[in-house]
Amino acid sequence: MAAGQRRQGRMTVREIGEYPLVHRLCQRLEHAFGIDPRVVVGAGDDAAVVEANGVPMVLTVDTQLEDIHFRRRWMPPFDLGWKAIAISLSDIAAMGARPLAALLALGLQGDEPLEFVDAFYEGAISLCQATGTLLLGGDTTRSLNGIMVCSVALGVLSGQAWRRKGAQIGDVLLLTGTVGDAATGLWLLEHEEATKDLQLPSEAVQHCLHRFRRPMPRTAVPDLLSNADIHAAIDISDGLVIDTERMAINSGVTAKLYLNQLPLSASLRSIATQAGHDPSQWALTGGEDYELLLAVPPPEAAKVCDILRQANIPAQVIGEVVAKEPYPVLGALPDGTHQPLFGGFQHFAP
Amino acid sequence: MAAGQRRQGRMTVREIGEYPLVHRLCQRLEHAFGIDPRVVVGAGDDAAVVEANGVPMVLTVDTQLEDIHFRRRWMPPFDLGWKAIAISLSDIAAMGARPLAALLALGLQGDEPLEFVDAFYEGAISLCQATGTLLLGGDTTRSLNGIMVCSVALGVLSGQAWRRKGAQIGDVLLLTGTVGDAATGLWLLEHEEATKDLQLPSEAVQHCLHRFRRPMPRTAVPDLLSNADIHAAIDISDGLVIDTERMAINSGVTAKLYLNQLPLSASLRSIATQAGHDPSQWALTGGEDYELLLAVPPPEAAKVCDILRQANIPAQVIGEVVAKEPYPVLGALPDGTHQPLFGGFQHFAP
Repeated sequence: MAAGQRRQGRMTVREIGEYPLVHRLCQRLEHAFGIDPRVVVGAGDDAAVVEANGVPMVLTVDTQLEDIHFRRRWMPPFDLGWKAIAISLSDIAAMGARPLAALLALGLQGDEPLEFVDAFYEGAISLCQATGTLLLGGDTTRSLNGIMVCSVALGVLSGQAWRRKGAQIGDVLLLTGTVGDAATGLWLLEHEEATKDLQLPSEAVQHCLHRFRRPMPRTAVPDLLSNADIHAAIDISDGLVIDTERMAINSGVTAKLYLNQLPLSASLRSIATQAGHDPSQWALTGGEDYELLLAVPPPEAAKVCDILRQANIPAQVIGEVVAKEPYPVLGALPDGTHQPLFGGFQHFAP
Repeated sequence: MAAGQRRQGRMTVREIGEYPLVHRLCQRLEHAFGIDPRVVVGAGDDAAVVEANGVPMVLTVDTQLEDIHFRRRWMPPFDLGWKAIAISLSDIAAMGARPLAALLALGLQGDEPLEFVDAFYEGAISLCQATGTLLLGGDTTRSLNGIMVCSVALGVLSGQAWRRKGAQIGDVLLLTGTVGDAATGLWLLEHEEATKDLQLPSEAVQHCLHRFRRPMPRTAVPDLLSNADIHAAIDISDGLVIDTERMAINSGVTAKLYLNQLPLSASLRSIATQAGHDPSQWALTGGEDYELLLAVPPPEAAKVCDILRQANIPAQVIGEVVAKEPYPVLGALPDGTHQPLFGGFQHFAP
């Protein structure tokens, strides 16, 4: 072991930070398992893809911890179960796959009423049923400090896997739905006291809370676009900028986001205005919208948008792919100027 | 909702207890998803089995929480990573399947040295490589209170799934390896101060610690027995009695265990003698051995034992299946007497 590695080994997880840590682990796993011909997509994408008797299976796991990802006081158990499933199904969709089955591991303190567990499972069952996913059990364990949820989803690919890499210079960036609503919802939940006197429009509030607590993953998109030429895809889980950055870095390109064409909901706009908050900030750096960002060649863009809109899935062009520049994500303004964009959720961030 | 259900809903998880809670959830999931023709094995077995384009896939998830399942002071990170994988691969083996891929979700406080994370992954990678399992990533998250590990394994079935149900009257009960070593190892770790002056044989101590911290799942058994007639199977994770009970109850039979034929290691015996502890107690109610219990028709038993022993997997007859009696598990003594057996690990137990 070189001296540099030894020094690095003594750093803490917090010092190195989430993304460098994950990058390091992915490299190690790629080295150990990447050469196996059954590995279609290894560590480091939205989900892994592995061939089982010739059938490419998509597998993902996600964690939700109390007081890290949610608070018991504002997260009803039904929504917690729903959202745990949603997060994993969104990863399956981001790979271009159809969900098949899910499992849930649940850690409980023991003082939860049975009603809580029942409602948690009803939430999970509801979303599974709505998306044709089979919920087939999991694991129940005691937890000393708060509720823990791990969700596992298994999906099936019919065509090629959509990767984070593969975006090409000239590609159009398409986004489903709107972004920033979930971040607005989280902000409302975490600032309940401060927002009491703001007289925020209650429908807008309900919309954003719903988007945060009960996200609807875009599970129908892969089948709808099975004949489209999708160069790259990722779901917006940690924030538009940071997830766009992941696609750009993995593809070796720079992504330009049109700052005046971000799809913002009327709810987000009205709350931001009332609260004196910058609406784009929520849209750019707030996560948990679980929309899909797609890089498609320009001749394909209109067709893809049409197909999605016909299925009642809003979709719009929000940017383009340009040659690699020093910064992976740029925000472009109508006057032709642009600026590097940063930010989004990171665990262990200082 | 009936009044009875409403009353039950107000009970806490601890009041209802782990097994009734899990039973309740399995029934709900069976009701919601059991009729789907793609579900080969739903909730309530060692793992779920679902058909993906005609290929039966086996899926399982398991959790390890700090100070519930392990303590940082006595669980080296390498062993923690190894064991997380082992537990899930054991479930795959208990279904009669071959492991294909695994994922790990890891919750960290942030103050762990990078060396800790590296060693954790090296342990997981080692067991994956030893068993032909592809470790394809997972999820990293911050945890407020202690380390959390969720392990996911995906397996492929070549023949019929081995179920907990299916044991028939007259079947012989076969067990691989020895039981009680892991429980002895855990006892040693949790009683370090008290056992200091006992002068326990160090090789025996090392053996039991190793069995507890680095269990070797029986992943080779399904392929070896692919042509054998296995009526039922389960892995010994919570204890021989309780896991035998699960097989018996699921099969609608009673299991008789020959108390004088329990496979106990010399290490366990010597530590029990020195410590004044009943060796069968560790063997009967201690869990985490990750051996396989198989119910096979008597004409098959000798062949199955031979095949396993030729592959250097110890296996022996430890009991038989009899008609359903009031108690699901009986301990039989050579004098013809028998007694009901109880006990094993349960979360939320009072």
